[in-house]
Amino acid sequence: MRQYFWLLLLPAGPAAAQATAPLTVQLDNVRLQVARNAAGQPTYAVQFGAKPVVTTSRLGLALADGPGFDGPLEITGSETKDVDETWNPVWGEVKTIRNHYRQLTVHLRQPQQPGRRLDVVFRVFADGVGFRYEVPRQPGLSYFTVQQELTEFNLPANHKAFWIPGDYDSNEYAYTTSRLSEVDTTPIEAIQQKAAPHRVQTPLMLKSDDGLYVNIHEAALVNYPAMMLDVDPATYGLRSHLVPAATGAAAYLQAPEHTPWRTIVVSDKAPEVLVSKLILNLNEPTKFPTTDWIKPQKFVGVWWEMHVNKASWNYADTSNLKLAGTDWNRLKPNGRHGANTTNVKRYIDFAAQHGLQSVLVEGWNVGWEDWAGNWKEEVFDFVTPYPDFNVTELQQYAAAKGVQLMMHHETSGSVTNYERRQQEAYRFMKEHNYAAVKTGYVGRIIPRGEHHDGQWMVNHYNHTAALLGQNELMVDMHEAVRPTGLHRTYPNWLASEAARGNEFNAWSSGNPPEHETILPFTRLMGGPMDYTPGIFRIKLESWNPAQNKGRQVHTTLAKQLALYVTLYSPVQMAADLPEAYEQHLDAFQFIKDVAVDWDDTRILAAEPGEYITTARKAKGREDWFVGSITDENPRQQTVKLDFLTPGRQYEATIYADAKGASWDKNPEAYQIRKQKVNSKSTLRLQLAAGGGAAISLRPIQ
Amino acid sequence: MRQYFWLLLLPAGPAAAQATAPLTVQLDNVRLQVARNAAGQPTYAVQFGAKPVVTTSRLGLALADGPGFDGPLEITGSETKDVDETWNPVWGEVKTIRNHYRQLTVHLRQPQQPGRRLDVVFRVFADGVGFRYEVPRQPGLSYFTVQQELTEFNLPANHKAFWIPGDYDSNEYAYTTSRLSEVDTTPIEAIQQKAAPHRVQTPLMLKSDDGLYVNIHEAALVNYPAMMLDVDPATYGLRSHLVPAATGAAAYLQAPEHTPWRTIVVSDKAPEVLVSKLILNLNEPTKFPTTDWIKPQKFVGVWWEMHVNKASWNYADTSNLKLAGTDWNRLKPNGRHGANTTNVKRYIDFAAQHGLQSVLVEGWNVGWEDWAGNWKEEVFDFVTPYPDFNVTELQQYAAAKGVQLMMHHETSGSVTNYERRQQEAYRFMKEHNYAAVKTGYVGRIIPRGEHHDGQWMVNHYNHTAALLGQNELMVDMHEAVRPTGLHRTYPNWLASEAARGNEFNAWSSGNPPEHETILPFTRLMGGPMDYTPGIFRIKLESWNPAQNKGRQVHTTLAKQLALYVTLYSPVQMAADLPEAYEQHLDAFQFIKDVAVDWDDTRILAAEPGEYITTARKAKGREDWFVGSITDENPRQQTVKLDFLTPGRQYEATIYADAKGASWDKNPEAYQIRKQKVNSKSTLRLQLAAGGGAAISLRPIQ
Repeated sequence: MRQYFWLLLLPAGPAAAQATAPLTVQLDNVRLQVARNAAGQPTYAVQFGAKPVVTTSRLGLALADGPGFDGPLEITGSETKDVDETWNPVWGEVKTIRNHYRQLTVHLRQPQQPGRRLDVVFRVFADGVGFRYEVPRQPGLSYFTVQQELTEFNLPANHKAFWIPGDYDSNEYAYTTSRLSEVDTTPIEAIQQKAAPHRVQTPLMLKSDDGLYVNIHEAALVNYPAMMLDVDPATYGLRSHLVPAATGAAAYLQAPEHTPWRTIVVSDKAPEVLVSKLILNLNEPTKFPTTDWIKPQKFVGVWWEMHVNKASWNYADTSNLKLAGTDWNRLKPNGRHGANTTNVKRYIDFAAQHGLQSVLVEGWNVGWEDWAGNWKEEVFDFVTPYPDFNVTELQQYAAAKGVQLMMHHETSGSVTNYERRQQEAYRFMKEHNYAAVKTGYVGRIIPRGEHHDGQWMVNHYNHTAALLGQNELMVDMHEAVRPTGLHRTYPNWLASEAARGNEFNAWSSGNPPEHETILPFTRLMGGPMDYTPGIFRIKLESWNPAQNKGRQVHTTLAKQLALYVTLYSPVQMAADLPEAYEQHLDAFQFIKDVAVDWDDTRILAAEPGEYITTARKAKGREDWFVGSITDENPRQQTVKLDFLTPGRQYEATIYADAKGASWDKNPEAYQIRKQKVNSKSTLRLQLAAGGGAAISLRPIQ
Repeated sequence: MRQYFWLLLLPAGPAAAQATAPLTVQLDNVRLQVARNAAGQPTYAVQFGAKPVVTTSRLGLALADGPGFDGPLEITGSETKDVDETWNPVWGEVKTIRNHYRQLTVHLRQPQQPGRRLDVVFRVFADGVGFRYEVPRQPGLSYFTVQQELTEFNLPANHKAFWIPGDYDSNEYAYTTSRLSEVDTTPIEAIQQKAAPHRVQTPLMLKSDDGLYVNIHEAALVNYPAMMLDVDPATYGLRSHLVPAATGAAAYLQAPEHTPWRTIVVSDKAPEVLVSKLILNLNEPTKFPTTDWIKPQKFVGVWWEMHVNKASWNYADTSNLKLAGTDWNRLKPNGRHGANTTNVKRYIDFAAQHGLQSVLVEGWNVGWEDWAGNWKEEVFDFVTPYPDFNVTELQQYAAAKGVQLMMHHETSGSVTNYERRQQEAYRFMKEHNYAAVKTGYVGRIIPRGEHHDGQWMVNHYNHTAALLGQNELMVDMHEAVRPTGLHRTYPNWLASEAARGNEFNAWSSGNPPEHETILPFTRLMGGPMDYTPGIFRIKLESWNPAQNKGRQVHTTLAKQLALYVTLYSPVQMAADLPEAYEQHLDAFQFIKDVAVDWDDTRILAAEPGEYITTARKAKGREDWFVGSITDENPRQQTVKLDFLTPGRQYEATIYADAKGASWDKNPEAYQIRKQKVNSKSTLRLQLAAGGGAAISLRPIQ
């Protein structure tokens, strides 16, 4: 019966159908206009001062079941409200965040039967606009399927864009910098699934010739697929494309429901984009009853030694095993297994000696012999260690030294298998005193046909964060969908990968020197990344000459230090091996000292694809840290220390590229110097090609 | 590297390539021939005496990844062995089962590179043939995907067939009886998903004009999709069609692996088909360490009263609820909720009074307000009762009366949600003293795109049986794939639905009177069915005149009693309401008396679509029970009691259709008479149109 109710309940003669005069909301420089086009479809446009940011662009949702919101819609009413409040994140780049916006809610209705209703809610901030679709509770629409979203972001000119291909299953691409008219994913080798030729991912960073910096992304991705953008190279129009489910539809929803926020951050200054809290503000506050168990931290791990072919994740070299039928004690060990008790103790000793909180161990659990690429459901069980990994002994050893082991759950994309075993896996973690888990989703997803960035997987990631939260456990997700500020809601979700991390330097063409200058303008707009900085042994041949021939990280050593400041994350790995650090303990001192949680952040200079200089004040302390990085060009950066407390003296320790250093020829040449400074001081940093500098600033008692 | 190894390891010059003379194996009347056709493809053929059963038919598997087994294959060798053994099922139709077969293993290899190997293993029994494909461990093939299976069952003539459409998601069809040339699913309304025009399901029952009864099905369906059959109406050829995954492929496998057994049961006597243990014999023995917790049983339940619109599963009439966001205590009760504490106590009282073991309660847990048809992931949590269902009070009440509650887990097809919650749900069952669960899979499956009968769901059902087994819990699965004898391996899997049950009589065109005479020849070949017999109030209007207008079960009352014998199951519901039984306690006595586990079974007469008369001896007792049913035609059945122990006197209680009874005009007219009999006695039963008779035979002390 239900589907016929609305025929009766639809009010006759909607009075507001004539409301076609544009609705306008402005806050500071940002101006939003909502109207209808000649076809009667709702549109919006955004200006920054006098400059167009988004020209008249359609809004709409196409449904799979009955008339959707893709045709003409009447505006039946609207409301506005102003909000100005502050809140304190559990951890973050700043201690206090202001949430100041003007909200416009526009009520829409199909002019024809069945007269289904849709709201669009806009929030206009000083640094941009967020909007989302809301399907209110209504008689004619309870369960519905979004076939596609028709949101446009029409751009006024052929901007420069920093983009990666719209792969439904991976964000692990180097960025291409091109005009919108030149966007073409065709020549780019697919990481997982080949993108359509003009499809790119968000966050998409744009720069206009008239000096605007525009970032398009989304906030609070919940119960919905990730949004990609289809670029029209002729008109510079962007149109949303939702990652499809196995069925081809996009999202299965139940009213009342809303989409994630579509976000447009805009400024005429690049640093303003980086400090924007628009995305975080559009996320819901956490509902966790307590958060004192959430600890920003640094860690080392049995990990990079596998990437540089010094050790293996797998215990044996036997392939084609079955999880259920294998007697792991009878396998012949290959002698290269990294996650053995002795080796892990070495990392625990190192972490304890240098005050790092945790030790990640990958390859501790059975299943790595043929874990990837087989689209196989039962790969890991998450609770059975290899014969040479003594969980209890290591837990006690670590505890005695004040260190915690960090759990690792690689799912190899078999998510149904993980979900069956999650509760048991988390009980195992609690039982053995693990406080955090690094999860992984390498390879094709099971349920087969689903994608990493589709609705089903989005729900899985959020479900996992919530379930871990209930267990007071923290998480760092790899190969998950790119973040959208959900760490406000789930502050135990410390970081994600969801971009091309440092690891690519170990076994591929690597990351170009500009890569880390683009990441904060793109991937990091949504949240922290576990980039795994801190590689000291830049040329990788010495670890394994046969297998690493010619491989190196595209960086100087000093730049690796700077990344701890320029790439924000509350969980930072010191990714290299203890023996690499032990050869440069003077430089390692910066990693020991640098904070992972902050009271304040200043972007001192930034240009995507070129350079970033960032200063941050450690949480609850007077110490400041500065990181400065450049692309493949050597560069001088002038750092005015006017953020320091006036009248106070500080000791600056400057970790800089040495003369003659460069990422390709001489990457490990660095110099460390100390000098006294105050708020009137200016430092001049010489960054090598592909180089950087890191500074710690400690008040002198 | 792995994929190149086989190039080196393939032995040069296979010596057995010329082995094209047919391989022949015979046991009693059944003769198998294996050969190669002109194209070099392997074939088989089956004869029964001089009569062809399956004419020359192709064997083959098409793979999605590289050269498969669909082209020519060399026969590189073969082996035979003879097995003759007996075993005792945990429960069943007979106490002891003989497993006697001759096995032929045929080794096949691709004649070209990569020379992948495939074995086909045949077992020839006195009553048919089983065969399966086995992919041995080999260097060139570890992980592989079966795109389709190419097994043919070519029939020598235009047999009569008893078939249902090849719906990937439902078996709940009435049977069509037609010649093979007339198979056409087009006019049949789909229950879930429309079948291809000539696609039918197994078990497929066939009768040839020269008097052979042939049943085609499969045994031990594990890690593989169900097999459907595509009928060629011109040639009478059948070809396997595997239910596809969401991706379109059929099965994701890892060598060594094998398919289920393809089974051909054949006899010139219809009863021989019904007593065949071929399918059970092709299943693996159980690995459960103990089985004494597995109890065949009868039960009543809060269930039929919902089907006849006297009560509701749902507690409130509010629709469009969300599981997580609903305060169930604040919903307005509709006053018709069946699973309320008071009503359940009434069933417990009834079960206790009449010696029935269990009380099923459907609708006890929150979520029924809009549970079906929405393809919604979070419908039920399996642990939260409605406000008017007191789990603890009822558990104690039942225990005090020596009765157990039977759990109900309706998943509404959202299997990922169920899998997430299974462990917790089973803990809840153990905590509250439930010993068995009826599961349900109504509606479209989540993971979306998967089918009830595809590999992923097959794995789910088997996983569920295993997991319940670990918890010493029994299960009765509804809307699961049709059985293939896996109750030998999982004896806690008491029954499945997987066919059109009695419930259809309550709210659809119902089941024609012939239906139950076909079920044992089709659906029940694979295992027991929870058909829910025992409806005494045949005309349903009296329960709810407005909503049940003209509805009735297509049966006489006496036939409902007979079904407890003719439709074998170790778990039998007395499906009607206590108040219906209380009006006919004399007839209900048969349901109280009839056994659900047996030492012996004799099919005294049977013809699919017409009649069945079955006698069974109660496990460990001297009591026999006889059931006799007919289709829409009245019929006399002569029952020779020569199965009784010679020289012993028995009291026969005969529950028969009364004079003038008929399923449509006078269904509730029955008569009960008692008489003394012995092994030389013959009873003449007058079965009404759509009627039946039930007899209990008790030795006189």
